[in-house]
Order: sequence, then structure tokens, then C-alpha cells
Amino acid sequence: MFEALPGCPPDRDEVALRRAAARQDTLTKPRGSLGALERVALQLAGLQGRELPAARPAAALIFAADHPVVRHGVSAYPAAVTAAMLSNFAGGGAAASVLARLHRLPLRVIDVGVDAAPGEPRDDAGAAPGAGATEVARVRRRGDVDLRDGAGDLLHRDAMTPAMHAAAQRAGADEVDALGPGLRVLVLGEMGIGNTTAAAAVYAGLLGGDPAQYVGPGTGVHGDALARKQDVVRGAVARARREHADLDDPRRVLQALGGREISAIFGAMVRAISGRCAVLVDGFIVGAAALALCRIDPRWREGMIFAHRSAEPAHLRALQALDAAPLLDLDLRLGEASGALTAFPILEAACVLHAEMATFAAAGVPGREDMPV
Amino acid sequence: MFEALPGCPPDRDEVALRRAAARQDTLTKPRGSLGALERVALQLAGLQGRELPAARPAAALIFAADHPVVRHGVSAYPAAVTAAMLSNFAGGGAAASVLARLHRLPLRVIDVGVDAAPGEPRDDAGAAPGAGATEVARVRRRGDVDLRDGAGDLLHRDAMTPAMHAAAQRAGADEVDALGPGLRVLVLGEMGIGNTTAAAAVYAGLLGGDPAQYVGPGTGVHGDALARKQDVVRGAVARARREHADLDDPRRVLQALGGREISAIFGAMVRAISGRCAVLVDGFIVGAAALALCRIDPRWREGMIFAHRSAEPAHLRALQALDAAPLLDLDLRLGEASGALTAFPILEAACVLHAEMATFAAAGVPGREDMPV
Repeated sequence: MFEALPGCPPDRDEVALRRAAARQDTLTKPRGSLGALERVALQLAGLQGRELPAARPAAALIFAADHPVVRHGVSAYPAAVTAAMLSNFAGGGAAASVLARLHRLPLRVIDVGVDAAPGEPRDDAGAAPGAGATEVARVRRRGDVDLRDGAGDLLHRDAMTPAMHAAAQRAGADEVDALGPGLRVLVLGEMGIGNTTAAAAVYAGLLGGDPAQYVGPGTGVHGDALARKQDVVRGAVARARREHADLDDPRRVLQALGGREISAIFGAMVRAISGRCAVLVDGFIVGAAALALCRIDPRWREGMIFAHRSAEPAHLRALQALDAAPLLDLDLRLGEASGALTAFPILEAACVLHAEMATFAAAGVPGREDMPV
Repeated sequence: MFEALPGCPPDRDEVALRRAAARQDTLTKPRGSLGALERVALQLAGLQGRELPAARPAAALIFAADHPVVRHGVSAYPAAVTAAMLSNFAGGGAAASVLARLHRLPLRVIDVGVDAAPGEPRDDAGAAPGAGATEVARVRRRGDVDLRDGAGDLLHRDAMTPAMHAAAQRAGADEVDALGPGLRVLVLGEMGIGNTTAAAAVYAGLLGGDPAQYVGPGTGVHGDALARKQDVVRGAVARARREHADLDDPRRVLQALGGREISAIFGAMVRAISGRCAVLVDGFIVGAAALALCRIDPRWREGMIFAHRSAEPAHLRALQALDAAPLLDLDLRLGEASGALTAFPILEAACVLHAEMATFAAAGVPGREDMPV
């Protein structure tokens, strides 16, 4: 039914991991005293197959799409914000543009299904990236599939046809290929008014229980609007269960209840991790693609680092299902890879400390005493 | 009794704060969606008195001293590690050296009382800071006081004489003055085998209750050694209470139960915050100086940003007493400003987002809809 994933989960390199762990224990600090920074360095060593892993070269990709579910009143912002934000990325004024510039990370934003107004970025061309600007590209077709043609509203119709899901997935993988070989860390983010609704539906499809438990304020809906959002997600999941006997297949969940940018992110994750490039997972939306992938094969988890715990309440449950201790908990709920970009320097610190700290022997620092007990 | 603090807590600039808050609400994101990043930007605006606060120029100071309490078997490492680490800082191999280099922050390490072996850094000279090296300086005297002369073991004798405490405090303030005007953020850290014992005693003196509750593994003591460390802190606090009727004065607590590097950090905080420079507080040890200062006058709190929650168990209690939500919780317990240096890019991100994100009006992005409720 679903086309095979364009990649396979990498085996952890146990030799590199052992060497990296042995090195950590020689560095001038009490063993384990760099906590999560040590754990990140070791995870990257096992993934990259090197005693001295690196956080660069790194790049950030943000996938954007519209969500017809917005017509059911699930968002505090109009759907047109998604298209307008593409221009804002191109001009360098979006949060992700600012953070990517600060941390010297190339950022590319890919429209995989936004109904843009005239004057918006041209097909497949991308805005010319000026000083501090972000490259914005538009992907309209993959093979026979028009990515704008026939996205569903979740409540009455699948988010995508299986062919659209596959095309979006391939579009994501292609973007990773275009970054070239040698990439060490890929930062993934999203933009799409309405996509906390889609992500909540995906979590409900993957994790079960009352779908309403995965619904939160998103950009800021409360009271009756939040209740309506919960009803929409409940209705969408019930519809998908009626229509699909195989909703236990995570790919079916993504296709029926997700969104084009979520499928593109899913494809980008597969391609990046297959090539032993770590994925720095942003928040609630990107986490839905991550969870779907780990439900297909838990070995994909090895390639993922979770950037932050979102303020979206259900993200905690999602992180627990992923056995993930995120690096940051800063009450962020913007999306756009903003949490992952904020966390990126922590990965860099982990790798640079691992590589550049002196050993006890080299620095002539006395080691731990055998204490009388 | 104690000399007056060399500075006074700044009033928050309410005009700058209001302007900064108004600006935040015009940026292209849902209101409040950058969580702690917004709160940091606003705190810095109020402190710096500018609508657009900055995280740079910034610098890091690490103060180092020996702790005679080590003779009671409270540390997993020999006291000589403190002196050896000064060479490691100078050579650029310590964690803080690596992180300061990564984040392009000038780092200066100041020995305010280390019994160094021959060949260690020269008096008041500092190692010539080569590429990637850290400047290491030695302060031996302030006025009539020799900072090495007569430090106590806490259990039987005060950590410092009042004159030594004052001299160490002035040494810290002088280091801030030497950084020159215009500094926006000061990162403060420490090095001193035995100083989790001193910090635990300071917390006990400031917060009360059973002193043992503030004692944790530090560099890694467990079992009988941890019980001994608890006994030492209990004994030290009991002694200080017997000898000093005024142990409710935080300065008395620092002088009787702290250490020279903690007093120097205290002095540096006073000077920095008086000059509207924010202090990025590292972990358990630096937090003890921060708490002492806030107990003298809670208005000092306005100038402090708390970098991380240490793995040292009692740090949580300390942070609660400071009403502090730290930026990071990465299970770190190294000291040396390593947590604060890891957190520094978050301050930078907060300021750069605040200054450089586009407004809804400028970017032509539609705002929030008035939703039917």
C-alpha cells in the first residue's frame, strides 16, 4: 500500500561509542558531571561512527503547508498567515530566520502546499537569499502529484491521498539530498496555521485514548474555541477509524490525519538518519513525524535529539512515548524550528567539549582519590 | 561591622520595560509564544534601561580558591586539583575554556587563594593569553590582607576573617571594574575543591533547617563519605551559630561558612548589577552568593538570570528560595561556569529575536482573528 521508506535505520557504531565513552572518562572533570552534554556527544558518536562527533556542518529545513481543517475554526490566526510568513522568512524577519542567522546555520523554507497570493515566492525558484535572508522555495509537483490538489479537512476527508503523502515524503527526502553529503545535524521545523490540530490527530492515531487529550491551545485558542478544536480532532480520528481498517499503520495515520509538511518532515528524517545525520527535532508538530517513524521501527530513535518541551500540554505525553528528555523547557510554542534552533548551540557545546577538553594525563591534573569509606 | 557594599541595587526602568513589552506584542509570532526568551528580553530591558537590550559585550569571570575543609574528607578529589586546574584553564583545556572559546567570550580566571605549586601562574601577571587560551591571574593581597593567610576549615574556625571576606569581595568588584564600562552580561563561575561543602553551609546559614539537607555528592561522594560531609556541614553551622550572634546577617554567613571565591563572586555581583550589567548565575556555588545578596536586599534579584539547575540535589531548594526558573536543566554538576556558558546563547537568542524579528505591520502578516466564541 505505502511505498517503502527511502532509507533504513542505521546500526549504532558500538566501537565508536565505546571509544567516545572511554574518552569522556579521561577528560578533566568528575565523571558524568557534564550530564546531558556527555549523553549527546555519545549519541552522536554512535550515530556518526566517530569517536569525535561533530555538530557541523548543520542546516535547517522548514516545511510549510496549509491545512483545510482551519475552516472549522481551530486556529486563532487566519490561514493566510502561512503564506504571509513565507515572505517574512524570505525577508529574514521570522524567528527562525533570526536564529539561523545568529547561529550561522543555512536555513531553507520549503512550501509543500501553501495557497500563496500573487507576489509570493515563485515556483521552485526560491527567493534570492540576500544578506541575512532565508531561502524560500516552492515545491508544487512530485511526479504526477500536485501537492495543492485535494488536501482534506480531516473531519470529512483524509489529509492527503496516499499518493500525496508519498509525494510530500519524497519532497522532504529530496531536500535532504540537495544539502549534499557530510551533513552532521539537520534541524527540522514547520509552518502551517492549523497544524497543531493535525498533529493532535496524529498523536491520537498513534497513541490511542481520547483524542481530546492531545489538543491544546496551539497559537492561542481557549474556551469554546478549544472545545471546538477538541471536537474536530475527535471527529477526525473517528472518521479515520471508520474509513481505514489499518489505522495501526503509522503511515496511514500520517496520510489520513496529518499534513503535507508533516509528511515532508517524515521523509526528511528518514533520509537524514539513514545517512547517519542526526535530526534535531523541534516541538509538538515535528514530534508527531518523529513518533510515527519510531512506531514503524524504534531504531530510528537513535538518530533523533529532542530540542525542547513545548508549552503545548500534550507534548509531554508525546515525549514520554518517545522516551525523550528534551534539552530545553523554555515554555516555547511558536514552531518554525525556533526551539530546535535555540537548542543547537547545546549540541555544538557537547561536541566541542568532547573534542577539545584536556585529559587528566595531558593537563597533569590529579585524578579522583580513593577515599576511605 | 561589615563594610558597606560597593554599590546599590538598580531600579527597574519601567519605561524601557513597557516599551520592550509593547514591542514583543507586535512581533510576528503569537503573543507569549517565545516563553522564557521573551521574559529574558524584558528583564534585560528593565535592567539595562533600553527597549532593545543586548547580551553583548559579555565576559566571564571564574574565581578560584582552596578550602581547608577538604582536610575533613569531604571531596572525592585532592585539594591539589584546584591549583592544577588553573594551569588547565591557562592552557585552554578546561570545560569553561572550551565553552568561552566556542561562544567568543573573554574568560578570565582569578586565583583568590590557591596554594599553587611552583611553575603555576605568576602573581598578578596572568598567563599570556594565546590563541584559545584563558587568562589566569593571581590576586594575593588586597590592602593589608593576604588572601592566603588564615583561611579556616569551617568546622573549627571561620572560613575567613571579616577583613579577608571584605578583601575577597573587593577583589571580585575590582575584576568587574577592570572589564570596563558597557558590559551587558557577566558570566560568573568558580573553581575550588571542597566548595560544595562551603556552599551547603552557606545555604544552611541563610535558609535554616537541618544543614544536612543542603549536602549532596558534589564531585562524587557517596555512602559513608557523604555522611561525613553532612556531619562536617552540621558541625560547621553549629559552630558558627555558637560563635556569632548575628548569623542572620548574610555577610556573616559568607564570612563564617563560605569561601574566598564565593566572597569574590558576591563582590563581583554587587558591582556588575549596580552598573546595570546582568549576572548570569552558574550553579550551586555561585547560587549561594546570589542568595546571600538577595537576602540583603531582594532588589538585587532583578539583575540575575539563573543559567541552570544543577544535579546537586539541594540546588532546587536554593532556586526556589530565589524564585528562579533556570534556563537549563541538563544534569550538570561541574561548576567552572560551565552551565552559565552553555546557557549564554539563550540570552543572546532572546535579545536578537527581540531586536531583529519583523513586526506584523512591517511584514504584512495578518494578525490574530477575532474568533467567534
